[in-house]
Amino acid sequence: MTAVEELVGGEVELADLPLRDDLRGRSPYGAPQLDVAVRLNTNENPYPPPPELVADVTAAAHAVAAELHRYPDRDAVALRTDLASYLTAATGVPLTSANLWAANGSNEVLQQIMQAFGGPGRTAVGFEPSYSMHPIIAAGTRTEWLPAPRRADFSVDVDAAAAVLRERAPDLTFLTSPNNPTGQSLEPDEVAALVEAAPGLVVVDEAYAEFSDRPSAISLLRTHGRKLIVSRTMSKAFAFAGGRLGYLAAAPAVVDALQLVRLPYHLSSLTQAAARAALQHAGATLGSVALLRAERDRVVAALVASGYDVVPSDANFVLFGRFADAPRAWRAFLDRGVLIRDVGIPERLRVTVGTPEENDVFLQVAADVVDQEIAG
Amino acid sequence: MTAVEELVGGEVELADLPLRDDLRGRSPYGAPQLDVAVRLNTNENPYPPPPELVADVTAAAHAVAAELHRYPDRDAVALRTDLASYLTAATGVPLTSANLWAANGSNEVLQQIMQAFGGPGRTAVGFEPSYSMHPIIAAGTRTEWLPAPRRADFSVDVDAAAAVLRERAPDLTFLTSPNNPTGQSLEPDEVAALVEAAPGLVVVDEAYAEFSDRPSAISLLRTHGRKLIVSRTMSKAFAFAGGRLGYLAAAPAVVDALQLVRLPYHLSSLTQAAARAALQHAGATLGSVALLRAERDRVVAALVASGYDVVPSDANFVLFGRFADAPRAWRAFLDRGVLIRDVGIPERLRVTVGTPEENDVFLQVAADVVDQEIAG
Repeated sequence: MTAVEELVGGEVELADLPLRDDLRGRSPYGAPQLDVAVRLNTNENPYPPPPELVADVTAAAHAVAAELHRYPDRDAVALRTDLASYLTAATGVPLTSANLWAANGSNEVLQQIMQAFGGPGRTAVGFEPSYSMHPIIAAGTRTEWLPAPRRADFSVDVDAAAAVLRERAPDLTFLTSPNNPTGQSLEPDEVAALVEAAPGLVVVDEAYAEFSDRPSAISLLRTHGRKLIVSRTMSKAFAFAGGRLGYLAAAPAVVDALQLVRLPYHLSSLTQAAARAALQHAGATLGSVALLRAERDRVVAALVASGYDVVPSDANFVLFGRFADAPRAWRAFLDRGVLIRDVGIPERLRVTVGTPEENDVFLQVAADVVDQEIAG
Repeated sequence: MTAVEELVGGEVELADLPLRDDLRGRSPYGAPQLDVAVRLNTNENPYPPPPELVADVTAAAHAVAAELHRYPDRDAVALRTDLASYLTAATGVPLTSANLWAANGSNEVLQQIMQAFGGPGRTAVGFEPSYSMHPIIAAGTRTEWLPAPRRADFSVDVDAAAAVLRERAPDLTFLTSPNNPTGQSLEPDEVAALVEAAPGLVVVDEAYAEFSDRPSAISLLRTHGRKLIVSRTMSKAFAFAGGRLGYLAAAPAVVDALQLVRLPYHLSSLTQAAARAALQHAGATLGSVALLRAERDRVVAALVASGYDVVPSDANFVLFGRFADAPRAWRAFLDRGVLIRDVGIPERLRVTVGTPEENDVFLQVAADVVDQEIAG
């Protein structure tokens, strides 16, 4: 008898279960979590939280720990107030807690949006390649996903995109600025043109906004609030990926709608308290952003100098190639101790901008493998 | 210009938005969160975490705070291992991390189950009155909810229920033991009979299992693992409602299926670490359970002595009445400083068992209002 046979229920196979047909044969989403010296695969901020933030998060956890037997504030009002203050300071748009909503990562925010405004019989358009969780969350909420193309250089042809939106008339449109995994941003007037062309709601996923010098689409909420939602995350620039805090800014009525589908008490007391503590240190945390942008530009220049084709990036990652065989090239980097990301785009790989030291290692490996991996 | 008019997007009404039709007119789920001296409305454990647990949760938060810039363990293996150890010790069934799954509260666990095994074109049966989130999560996942009745005394007629399951052939069946908000448990042989009658999966919601002296349905996983899922929570007996940690035990293939629908990195580093710290103190935390059970029996006896009709309870709450007007009676308790729960069952209200002091206040108020509120 093997160990597997001894597992309680180990005799049950996935094929024995009444799984939904559309899930059969699928694999769970997620980048490999490998223990490698240089991990540049999930667009994390490489700089650990400063000691003052660690101390304040710890103190916040201590303060709520004594009340863990009680449910959290279901509406997370204090946290949403702090997020509004941060966005107001960042964008100049006077938001309040009524404009803000938060959940366990922007994935949950996006899922709630699709539960309220998508679902069976409804459609969503995205311009691909883009964040691969958008179609996955659409599938999870049974929203029909209608992929639309970008240009060959991965930028959005706004006139063509507007024509797609007018023709397909989706209930939801997903824009990304900057776009993961390619790196380009949309200007606010481009977003405005697309919101005007779209008959339904437009979600602008600004997960990487702090790395861009383009203005946020939040500035459009005053004029386009009936059709616009802007999502954000603390996972990237805020160096809070482990804390799982995504949020959005929208008209208060949108927030009211999301409260009809959110699971009650979805945000723990610890999450609310820790995120608030982290927000108090926004200045220090976001201090790393300027450094990362400078490093990004250095990485781009060095990759070009090594002979790579590089997509312009407004974020903390760079899409580069063109490889004869991207999965094989990914392996070549991994074999040399550098974990980057194969995002499924032919001939390209994505690297997250790390610390200068990590970037040096990556660039050395990149220079090392360029001759054998680049398409002739 | 009023303050509301000044809100960014404040001119947008909920009716302006393309909300799904089935959500129109609905209100967000949730008990009123009121600042009242005696809060006996959400079945929380009234005893705060002991100082050692607070210290260990704080230390755990400190340990992970320095790594918050990194994503958490996506599969939460260490936490699932600890949960397996707890359930093995509690039930004698040798579970491993492969049998366990965890999410942000049992609501998210149940939502993932319905996403994987329910959804459009699929059905779920529950025996009502029961936990009101079951049909809400069904609606959120577009699973058709088929309510089936309990006996007038709120117990399950197992033969009649088995007949319902054979006839309706639901994809999912929800059992609850003990049942919220009525309090009765099912014996494992009753659960087994229903699992055998049901063609699809059966979910036994054991959120209040620690308060019951009936054996857990987890003992059936060895024989009925192909069709059985047992969900649990740390919100009740574990006094961890603020930490938001729900979990389940099932065949490993069920856990594999749920990984196809879970949002990646759904459990934060803080949640994983804090829950593990809390589990280390299971003995001390669950020490309050015996006291709460004794208090429950005292509350039941006193309510009966005061002239109330009381439903037998195997949990940490008591359903009692019969009121001429339950919402008015709820208000009478609130006006006297005691917040209990109107769960929508005519003539009945639900009270959570609190500390002896809280229960004394409640019982005094109950004796005070009995004459004016009880149906003649």
